[in-house]
Amino acid sequence: MNLILIDREKDDFTSPTRVKVYGRRFEHITKVHRACLGDSLTAGIINGRMGTGTITDISTDHLEMELVLDHDPPPALEMTLVMALPRPKMFRRILEALASLGVKQIYLINSWRVEKGFWSTPVLEQENIDKALLLGLEQAGDTTMPRVHLRRFFTPFVNEELDTIAGRTLRLAAHPKGVTTCPCHPGTCVTLAMGPEGGFIQKEIDSFERLGFTCVTLGPRILRLETAVPYLVSRLFA
Amino acid sequence: MNLILIDREKDDFTSPTRVKVYGRRFEHITKVHRACLGDSLTAGIINGRMGTGTITDISTDHLEMELVLDHDPPPALEMTLVMALPRPKMFRRILEALASLGVKQIYLINSWRVEKGFWSTPVLEQENIDKALLLGLEQAGDTTMPRVHLRRFFTPFVNEELDTIAGRTLRLAAHPKGVTTCPCHPGTCVTLAMGPEGGFIQKEIDSFERLGFTCVTLGPRILRLETAVPYLVSRLFA
Repeated sequence: MNLILIDREKDDFTSPTRVKVYGRRFEHITKVHRACLGDSLTAGIINGRMGTGTITDISTDHLEMELVLDHDPPPALEMTLVMALPRPKMFRRILEALASLGVKQIYLINSWRVEKGFWSTPVLEQENIDKALLLGLEQAGDTTMPRVHLRRFFTPFVNEELDTIAGRTLRLAAHPKGVTTCPCHPGTCVTLAMGPEGGFIQKEIDSFERLGFTCVTLGPRILRLETAVPYLVSRLFA
Repeated sequence: MNLILIDREKDDFTSPTRVKVYGRRFEHITKVHRACLGDSLTAGIINGRMGTGTITDISTDHLEMELVLDHDPPPALEMTLVMALPRPKMFRRILEALASLGVKQIYLINSWRVEKGFWSTPVLEQENIDKALLLGLEQAGDTTMPRVHLRRFFTPFVNEELDTIAGRTLRLAAHPKGVTTCPCHPGTCVTLAMGPEGGFIQKEIDSFERLGFTCVTLGPRILRLETAVPYLVSRLFA
């Protein structure tokens, strides 16, 4: 937890700049950071500004912080990610990684190789998605919550929505069998499609190509989604 | 499993080019790939060449493959990684990711913020390390096993070994508080040091700097080790 995230609506403000912190954050601040009265920690408001929180009071189950919010969060990555729904085991970790990398628009879509059962797992409940995203923001030191959009049906998403979503961005689809090397720092907004384990099937790739997506490869190695995502983000934006 | 890895010493060869495959690989080939008699799969010899394995026989608990090994594995990444021992929960995943990325020299070292108990966990047994590395190679499609070196004591490693290990390579230490941006595709061999959660302490950073390491930052976001590794590898080599 490199940032204490405060929720303007749900947290207990005792003045416009003073807030009580309970539970998981309280435990982390006192037990991991071992912070004491008067210590300042990096803090920020969800979808708001960042700065410091100075501990003004500690009790047995909460502490109080005086917030000074003097700067904006890091800029969002100029990327929309369209990703086949990962398996539940990986899901939380990938969301956390995406939030930590600064990806702010995430479309989770169906694909031939996504097992149908993945769509009815509890990891997809908004509360669980938000938990994973918050962990990523706390790790990275960012306050802007990514938006996660679930799209259960491939064809209507690709035929009716994707062109508008991608707009004037550079359209790329990561594909192990792609022949074009992924561009390095193209200096433009990107819409990136990533397939499931085993990749998109040819018919799906055809759909992306009809919309002007270029299939790109990451090199001679086939990487797992959780490794490929930071690898590609770095190549496109670092 | 994008590659069937064969062990020249342990597997059951019935001729110089024909091998019996049992157990986990057999299950995967028949149940996930759903391969049949006559099908060809990507195959390779551990620390040897790659090519195809054509199924010449299938029984209830094993199959036989005829190997044609006509090309070398992808080139190794020109990087030595010196990494504070990750927590056991992450360890297997990180090793797997490193193997899939092509890192071949990995020194796992102690650091002030590594919990002592991590050094006595079963994940550090050679057999478990090898398992994780093999999974990474199978994923990526590579045959060259990385070498993992355990160094339980920071000071003798840094004072007596590291200078020789780093040789003429570019010496970098990833550090959230670094001020230099990590170079992009430096075009040279790199020795990269990465700290534990919370980072190296100042005294450790001083030791690296005395040996000519430059502290580099990844940008405004603090990434978890498992996200930072592919991010940095991509920046340095992709």
